[in-house]
Amino acid sequence: MAARGGFFLSLLNYKTEKYVIAENRKIGILFRLYQLAVLGYIIGWVFVAKKGYQEKEEAIQTSVFTKLKGVALTNDSNKGLHLWGAEDYVIPPNGEQVFFVVTNYIETPNQRLGFCPEVNGRCTSDDDCEEGETVIAGNGIKTGVCINSTGTCEVHAWCPVEYSPRPQEPLLSAAENFTVYIKNFIRFPNFNFFRSNVLETAEANYLKNCTYDSETHPYCPIFHLGNLVSWTGSDFQEMAVKGGSVGILIEWKCDLDKDYSLCNPQYSFTRLDININNSVTSGYNFRYAKHFKDPKGESFRTLYKVYGIRFDIMVNGQGAFACDMILLYMMNTSSFYRERKFEIINFK
Amino acid sequence: MAARGGFFLSLLNYKTEKYVIAENRKIGILFRLYQLAVLGYIIGWVFVAKKGYQEKEEAIQTSVFTKLKGVALTNDSNKGLHLWGAEDYVIPPNGEQVFFVVTNYIETPNQRLGFCPEVNGRCTSDDDCEEGETVIAGNGIKTGVCINSTGTCEVHAWCPVEYSPRPQEPLLSAAENFTVYIKNFIRFPNFNFFRSNVLETAEANYLKNCTYDSETHPYCPIFHLGNLVSWTGSDFQEMAVKGGSVGILIEWKCDLDKDYSLCNPQYSFTRLDININNSVTSGYNFRYAKHFKDPKGESFRTLYKVYGIRFDIMVNGQGAFACDMILLYMMNTSSFYRERKFEIINFK
Amino acid sequence: MAARGGFFLSLLNYKTEKYVIAENRKIGILFRLYQLAVLGYIIGWVFVAKKGYQEKEEAIQTSVFTKLKGVALTNDSNKGLHLWGAEDYVIPPNGEQVFFVVTNYIETPNQRLGFCPEVNGRCTSDDDCEEGETVIAGNGIKTGVCINSTGTCEVHAWCPVEYSPRPQEPLLSAAENFTVYIKNFIRFPNFNFFRSNVLETAEANYLKNCTYDSETHPYCPIFHLGNLVSWTGSDFQEMAVKGGSVGILIEWKCDLDKDYSLCNPQYSFTRLDININNSVTSGYNFRYAKHFKDPKGESFRTLYKVYGIRFDIMVNGQGAFACDMILLYMMNTSSFYRERKFEIINFK
Repeated sequence: MAARGGFFLSLLNYKTEKYVIAENRKIGILFRLYQLAVLGYIIGWVFVAKKGYQEKEEAIQTSVFTKLKGVALTNDSNKGLHLWGAEDYVIPPNGEQVFFVVTNYIETPNQRLGFCPEVNGRCTSDDDCEEGETVIAGNGIKTGVCINSTGTCEVHAWCPVEYSPRPQEPLLSAAENFTVYIKNFIRFPNFNFFRSNVLETAEANYLKNCTYDSETHPYCPIFHLGNLVSWTGSDFQEMAVKGGSVGILIEWKCDLDKDYSLCNPQYSFTRLDININNSVTSGYNFRYAKHFKDPKGESFRTLYKVYGIRFDIMVNGQGAFACDMILLYMMNTSSFYRERKFEIINFK
Repeated sequence: MAARGGFFLSLLNYKTEKYVIAENRKIGILFRLYQLAVLGYIIGWVFVAKKGYQEKEEAIQTSVFTKLKGVALTNDSNKGLHLWGAEDYVIPPNGEQVFFVVTNYIETPNQRLGFCPEVNGRCTSDDDCEEGETVIAGNGIKTGVCINSTGTCEVHAWCPVEYSPRPQEPLLSAAENFTVYIKNFIRFPNFNFFRSNVLETAEANYLKNCTYDSETHPYCPIFHLGNLVSWTGSDFQEMAVKGGSVGILIEWKCDLDKDYSLCNPQYSFTRLDININNSVTSGYNFRYAKHFKDPKGESFRTLYKVYGIRFDIMVNGQGAFACDMILLYMMNTSSFYRERKFEIINFK
Repeated sequence: MAARGGFFLSLLNYKTEKYVIAENRKIGILFRLYQLAVLGYIIGWVFVAKKGYQEKEEAIQTSVFTKLKGVALTNDSNKGLHLWGAEDYVIPPNGEQVFFVVTNYIETPNQRLGFCPEVNGRCTSDDDCEEGETVIAGNGIKTGVCINSTGTCEVHAWCPVEYSPRPQEPLLSAAENFTVYIKNFIRFPNFNFFRSNVLETAEANYLKNCTYDSETHPYCPIFHLGNLVSWTGSDFQEMAVKGGSVGILIEWKCDLDKDYSLCNPQYSFTRLDININNSVTSGYNFRYAKHFKDPKGESFRTLYKVYGIRFDIMVNGQGAFACDMILLYMMNTSSFYRERKFEIINFK
C-alpha cells in the first residue's frame, strides 16, 4: 500500500475509474449506436437548438397596433347629449399596445383659475386652513380662509372644483359593443422568419365581418370588448362603473423547422387587477383637461375624470428549453449486466 | 456471491465505482492542476458568471429618450398652408421609446354635433336605417331616416362627417429629412455598470452635425428618418402614403470583464409590418381631434386622420449563456492511459 | 489481451465502470436514502420547478398603474400665476408605467402662423437665408430674407418663435412634495397566483396617510417624488432644472410553494441617465402645444417647452434558476471509505 507513504504524495496520485470491457459484437454495436446518438444529440443541441434558444430569449421582435371601432351617445342629465368616437374614448389615440377605453366619466366644464371652496376636508375656523399649504388630495392651495357656508377651506384653484361622487352607472355602457382590431407582427430576426396574427389567406371581407371566438373564429383578429371582459370571468357593465385592467396574452409557439402555416397565435385573457380583498385597489381612473380661451383671451378648461378599462397586450414567443434534456442524459444508469460488473466485498 | 442472499438485503448494498490509483508525480501534478481548473471554473461559474447571467436575464435596466427635429410646410389645396413642427408630427410628443411620425393626414375642420348624412353604407328607404343603431365602421348613430340626395342614412354625429378617400401622395413628404436623436442608457445594476449610446468622448459639436452611418459614423446617435426606412429595404415616400412600422434594434454585447470602451451599441433596422400578402394589413393610421369653443361657448372640433410611421426602439442586453459550458465539462472522457485502466473480460 | 485483436473489433467492445459493492446495512440504508433524495430532487425539478421556471421566463403577467397627487402654484414673471394639477404636470395623464412629471417650463403664448425672425443662426445678407430651406434645429422655413435688426433669417413659422434661454431655477420646485401611488399587479398564470403590491391587510386609512420608507413602511405603495430622487443619490431641485430620468425597480422573489404572505415586493431606485461626462446628454425636455381658435376662427397656440423627470417602473419576477443545482449534484464525489474502494497500482 504505497499510498500510505505520505499524505502529500498521495495527493499527487491520479485516480481513475476502473472499467470492464465486454467483447461482444451485438452489445458493442448497440453501445456505439448509443454513443453516436448521444453525440448527435449534443451537436444538435449545441449548434442548432441553443441558437434557437438565444433567438427566442434575446431577439424576438414584436409590434402591436390596435384600432377601436364603435360610437356611443351619452346622455348626461346636466350636460346633455355627447357623442363618443374612438378619437375620444381611446386614450392614447395612437393605436398603442396598452390602451384605455373610457366607460364612465365626470365632466366639470368651464373651470377658471380663481378662489372657491374646496370640497374635501372640513374646517371650523381659519386656523384649520393654513395659507399656502398644499392639499395633497385636494384641488388647490389654501388661502387661509374657512368658508362658513360650505365648512371647507377656500382654495386658489381651477374653479368650481370637481365634485366627484362615487359613480353608480356607466355612462358609456355601449362600450361593451365596441370592437378592437389587434394587429401583431412577430419576427425571429436570425431566421428572418415573419409572421402576423392576421390570416394571410383571409379575404378583406372576412376581416370586415368576423369576430374572434376561440371555437369558431380562432384566427380572427377582431375582438368584442364585452367578450374580452367576460372571458376573464368578469362582468363588463360592473367593471365599467369604476374601471379595471384586462390582459390579452398572445402566445406564439412556433417550431421554426416545421411548416410556416402551423405557426399561429394562441390568445388568452385575464383580469390583471384582481386582489383577494379588492376594496382598496379596485378601479381605474385618471383626469385630463381640454383647454380653451374665451374671446378676451382668458383661459378656461373642461376637466374630465374618466373611468375605464385598460387593456394590456402581452406577446410571448416560444419557450421550450433544452436544459432538462441534459438531465435525462445524466440519468442513464447503465444497469445492464449487473453481476459481471460488480465485485462483491464484505465490508466489515 | 453474498449478493444472492436476498433481494432486500442486496438493495442495502452500497455500490461505488472501483478506481485505479496511479503513483506518478508528473501525471499526479497534471491531474491536480486539472482538478483545480475544474474547481476554479465551477466556483467562477456559480459565484461570478451565474450572477452575471441573472443580471442580464432579470435586471438589465434601460431607458430610451427620443427627440425629433425638422419642420415641414404642407400645402393642402383646401386648407392652405400649415407648418408642422416636432410638437405636431410626433405622437406622443414626450420622447417615448415607441413614437409615431405623421407623414400624411386628412383634416376635417369645424365639426359640430348634429345631424348629417353618413358617407358609408347605402340606403334606399328608411327601413335600411334603423333608429338608434350604432354603425360600427361609421361615424354616428342612425336617426331612422334615409336621405335621398346622398343615398345614405342620416346620423347623429360630429358633422360634417369625415370623407376619407384612399391617400395617394404623402403631404409631409419632407418628413424624410427629419432626424431623430436617440439617447439610450443601460445599466447592469449588480455590477453598477453604466453605459450610454452617446459617445462620451464626443464633442458637443460632433453631435450637432453627425448622422448615423454604419460605416462612417457607427456611434453617432442621430438618425435620418429616410435612412432608417431605406435600411429596412423599403422606400420612405411609398411608406409615407399609408404608413408603416419600423423597428430599431439596439444590441449591447458587453463583456463586463473587459474594457469599458469596448462596450458599444450595435444598431439594426427592420420593417415590422411585413406580410407575404400585405393587401389587408398594410398601413398605419389613427384619428385624433382638437377641441375648440366658439364665443357662445359651443363646442366644435377639427378631426385629423393621420397616417405615418411608427418607430419601435428595442434594446437587448448581452445574451451569452453558461449552460453549454457544463456540457463541455461533461464531455470530458478521460481517455488517457487506456490500457492500464481496463480489465478485458470475455463476455460470453 | 484480446483487445489487441484489431482496432475495429475493439471499437465494438462495451466499456463500463467496475463497481465495488459494500455489504453493510447502515451504509446501504444511507445510500438508498441518498438515492431517493436525488430521485425526488430530479422529479421535483423536472416536473415542478421546471414548470415554474418556464412560468417565470415566458409568462409572468404584470400591470402597473400610477396616480400622482399634489398641486403647485407657479409665478412666472411674464405670465402671472398658474396652477398645476396632476392633469397638467403628468404626461401622459393616463396612469402609465412610464410617466413624466413637469418640473420646469418655458411658455410661448399666442403664436400664430406667419413670418418673423429666427432666433438661431446668424446671417449677414440674404444669401445666408436660402429660400425654402428647412432649418433642422430651427423653428421654421427660411423665406430668403435676412433681417438686419436681429441679424437672423426671416422664417415662415409659428410667430413669435420660442426664445429659450438655459433654465436656471425650476418653476415647479414644489414638485418635490408630489406623491405617486404605484399599483402593481402580478400573476403567474400557470399557477393562477395573483399578487399586488398594495397590502391586502392594509386599511383604507393606512393608504391615505402612509409614505414608502424602506425601514418603516416597506410595503406602502405611495412614494414621495423628492425621496425617489434622493434615493438615487441625486438632488431633486438640481435635477428639476433641466430634467432627468429615474428608474423604479420592483422585484418579486416569490417561492410559490411557500406562504402567500411571504411574497412581497422589493423596491430599488436608480438614476437612468448617468454618464461619466454628462455635459452633452443631461436633461430631459420636449415641447407640446395647446391649440385655440379666436372668434374669427383663426388658429393660434401656446407652445410649452417642458423640462422634467421621467420615471420608468420596471417589474421583475423571481429569478432563481435550477441549473446550478445540477452542478451541485455533479460535484458529489463519493469520497467515503476511500481505501477500500481503490486499488493502488505502481504506475511506472
